[in-house]
Amino acid sequence: MKIVTGGPFVIIINSKDAQVLDLEVLGRVRIRGKKRDVVAVADLAADELFVKQGEIVLLWDLAQELGVKEGEELEIHTEINPRSLMFIKKKLDGKGLNESEVSEIIKDLVENALTEVETTFFVAGCYRNGLSLDESAFLTKAIVRNGGRLNFEKKPVLDKHSIGGISGNRTTMIVVPIIAAAGFFIPKTSTRSISSPSGTSDTMEVLAPVAHSKEKIMSIVKKTKGCMVWGGTLDLASADDLLIKVERPLSLDPEGILLASIMAKKVAANVSHVVIDIPVGGEAKITSRKGARNLSGKFVALGRRVGIRVKAVITDGSEPIGWGVGPALEARDVLEVLHGRGPGDLRKKSLFLAASLLRMVGVKNAEKKVKDLLDSGAALKKMREIVGEQGGNAEITAEEIKVGKFVYEIRARMSGKISKVSNSLVCRIAKAAGAPANKGAGVLLNKKVKDSVKKGELVFKIYAESEEKLEYAKSLLKEEVFVIR
Amino acid sequence: MKIVTGGPFVIIINSKDAQVLDLEVLGRVRIRGKKRDVVAVADLAADELFVKQGEIVLLWDLAQELGVKEGEELEIHTEINPRSLMFIKKKLDGKGLNESEVSEIIKDLVENALTEVETTFFVAGCYRNGLSLDESAFLTKAIVRNGGRLNFEKKPVLDKHSIGGISGNRTTMIVVPIIAAAGFFIPKTSTRSISSPSGTSDTMEVLAPVAHSKEKIMSIVKKTKGCMVWGGTLDLASADDLLIKVERPLSLDPEGILLASIMAKKVAANVSHVVIDIPVGGEAKITSRKGARNLSGKFVALGRRVGIRVKAVITDGSEPIGWGVGPALEARDVLEVLHGRGPGDLRKKSLFLAASLLRMVGVKNAEKKVKDLLDSGAALKKMREIVGEQGGNAEITAEEIKVGKFVYEIRARMSGKISKVSNSLVCRIAKAAGAPANKGAGVLLNKKVKDSVKKGELVFKIYAESEEKLEYAKSLLKEEVFVIR
Repeated sequence: MKIVTGGPFVIIINSKDAQVLDLEVLGRVRIRGKKRDVVAVADLAADELFVKQGEIVLLWDLAQELGVKEGEELEIHTEINPRSLMFIKKKLDGKGLNESEVSEIIKDLVENALTEVETTFFVAGCYRNGLSLDESAFLTKAIVRNGGRLNFEKKPVLDKHSIGGISGNRTTMIVVPIIAAAGFFIPKTSTRSISSPSGTSDTMEVLAPVAHSKEKIMSIVKKTKGCMVWGGTLDLASADDLLIKVERPLSLDPEGILLASIMAKKVAANVSHVVIDIPVGGEAKITSRKGARNLSGKFVALGRRVGIRVKAVITDGSEPIGWGVGPALEARDVLEVLHGRGPGDLRKKSLFLAASLLRMVGVKNAEKKVKDLLDSGAALKKMREIVGEQGGNAEITAEEIKVGKFVYEIRARMSGKISKVSNSLVCRIAKAAGAPANKGAGVLLNKKVKDSVKKGELVFKIYAESEEKLEYAKSLLKEEVFVIR
Repeated sequence: MKIVTGGPFVIIINSKDAQVLDLEVLGRVRIRGKKRDVVAVADLAADELFVKQGEIVLLWDLAQELGVKEGEELEIHTEINPRSLMFIKKKLDGKGLNESEVSEIIKDLVENALTEVETTFFVAGCYRNGLSLDESAFLTKAIVRNGGRLNFEKKPVLDKHSIGGISGNRTTMIVVPIIAAAGFFIPKTSTRSISSPSGTSDTMEVLAPVAHSKEKIMSIVKKTKGCMVWGGTLDLASADDLLIKVERPLSLDPEGILLASIMAKKVAANVSHVVIDIPVGGEAKITSRKGARNLSGKFVALGRRVGIRVKAVITDGSEPIGWGVGPALEARDVLEVLHGRGPGDLRKKSLFLAASLLRMVGVKNAEKKVKDLLDSGAALKKMREIVGEQGGNAEITAEEIKVGKFVYEIRARMSGKISKVSNSLVCRIAKAAGAPANKGAGVLLNKKVKDSVKKGELVFKIYAESEEKLEYAKSLLKEEVFVIR
């Protein structure tokens, strides 16, 4: 049956066969495949005419995995519960897990031997009881063992990472060309947006394709020293995707899993040095400097356990970074900064992160060096190389990037000074306008915190690719995006 | 599509439509029905030819719920997360829930507005953080509000309940006829076995049908004062079934949920007085007298909150009760006891429970009274009335009950005294032999703890309805069922 469930493998079985197999709804079966056994969950057919006794229906992904065709015979058994369920219960009970226990859970997770309910109990246990540094290190290694790898033999391999949560924070697309122009490897893999108006991959995609095979990525990096690609095709952390899926409904983000998932991707990409950006602000993921210092310490300690040098930097996350929020508008900001213009905060933050990274590998006068690379046009040249290698238009200018045709301008109701820009509301408006699926949709800020504004002056614009989406975004304007004092 | 998933409602949608709706795999949609809106979870079709753009496929139970036919137009919307998710997160965070929060979670659960992942987080929160007495009372009331009811206007309405876990513990089928013969209402609803060789409904079903409509049950009770029916058709606690489903993989049984689910069924059946049997033993659900006293106190306190008088009695759960384990073998034991013969422990325990119940409603000399009702044949006569009203053969004798034709005898390897009978192993053997699906399958104990035994003497028999099942059950005999000293 040509359906993908997005969860564990599923078969559909006649209810009488289910009785014979002593299977409950959503019970487990093991299917003997040609190469390996696959564990699947059994749904019952409501009508015997649909699935006859002795027949089973395989969902598409399982049929692909087993490589079977219609009419073939299959051997199925009632499956006993995997041992990892005991370890999941142990974690839920607040007890610590050792390396082989964590390893078995992640192996079963990746092999689809766990149902969503079971995965959820694991996440609940990690969320409620936390993970020790040891457990995070075990988890990191287990995720790496059960995922793909990028094998750069030459070291150092540099990287930057932001824990996210701040709109418009597209420093990666400026840091990568600077570092590559400085002669260091920086094979950057990014995610697409999960719940934000744009992820680095969404914004980069405005300039060039981001989904490439492992071989293509290796060749891009060999030629240019850098890349900005979507990590999805590499499966650097397949376990992570499965965990994120169950975390999403409650927006859980258990710290131990977050740490492990970030560091696992770095280990899998053979990274030796990484700068981690931790934005702090009232509407950021981390709301206090104390919390940021705490998290920063954990990143450094975990890095030490898994062989990566980590520098965590605490940055201003009180308002969006740059002017644009949404893929095309952010890509415009990036090109402007690479041309020596554009939003000052994005430029400043990118230079700071790039300099931090160069200092880690012993570069002297790193601040001056990164400024020179940006102002001399070396970073822009490098960006064009990378965009070209990834199959994009290397010569594109900011003005040539298309943005939404439907625009709404929001003007100041009074004169004064901007005391706050709501990051979360900007996010929601940009998403309502269609970002990231509609590349040209988003929000363009004309004012930032501390700017003066006159009554009637433009404060921000909403861009959308359809009238409906624009109206939907406008409906969120009941709340105040800007606070003017 | 004629499939039941056993979870929340599911639709299958073209992946391009999913993009337009901004839906992730397993995202939520609201479908506008004729009578009411239904929330469903969306799976993506792997092949556009299977589900075209603009089309959706409904799984069977959802199509039934909406009452739609093939080709009809449906309006669907991306659904925002229900508020109950916030409350589930609150509980997972270890905070207490108030009445309206518990109520909203249970309402959404019963209306299929929660996915399994979300239900699992709720169970994990209840398991890890426990439920206060207040929360258990809120949960009890919420389960009652969202389920069916049995409305007996006359009080008192008596009941007995065992927390389960001990093989052969079929006291219900002796207590009910005694209490009804004493002239009190005792409309007993029971479950089928979940993981044991037989539930009260499975054993009663050997004598008479147990699945009846609410009206039929009311009429049986009006005529005979008692009944022994399966509670499933009444939906006295639909929420409970959904919670149990996610508890099963890790065999979790959060105490607060257990308490609420038992008491909710009593409230829904308008019970005024209940005796609760808490067996204690090394292989029972409760392993210490301290644990039993603790649980007992909670039952009484929760009863007070929801208007039911509860007497919790702590009983011996160190070995199986009676001789037979498995539906038919247990039914034989019951009839023997009602005839004044049969296993002494089953008779004694049943008399004790029945007397406790009569004392609660102010009957004097309750011990003598229940003994008289049993020994005079009044209880047997009442049992025949109830069996007859439920549509069974009222005159059936123990010998006429069919048991499995394939029998294996286990004899003592040495002489001595029985020091232990493994309840859990007896359970597993009876299940392996086919119980409860094969009514005639099970284990018949010939010796109990403290009995003397001679080498070569029969200790127990395994009954099965097929050679294969008997062999399967025999394969479990590597472990010692009886310990002889």
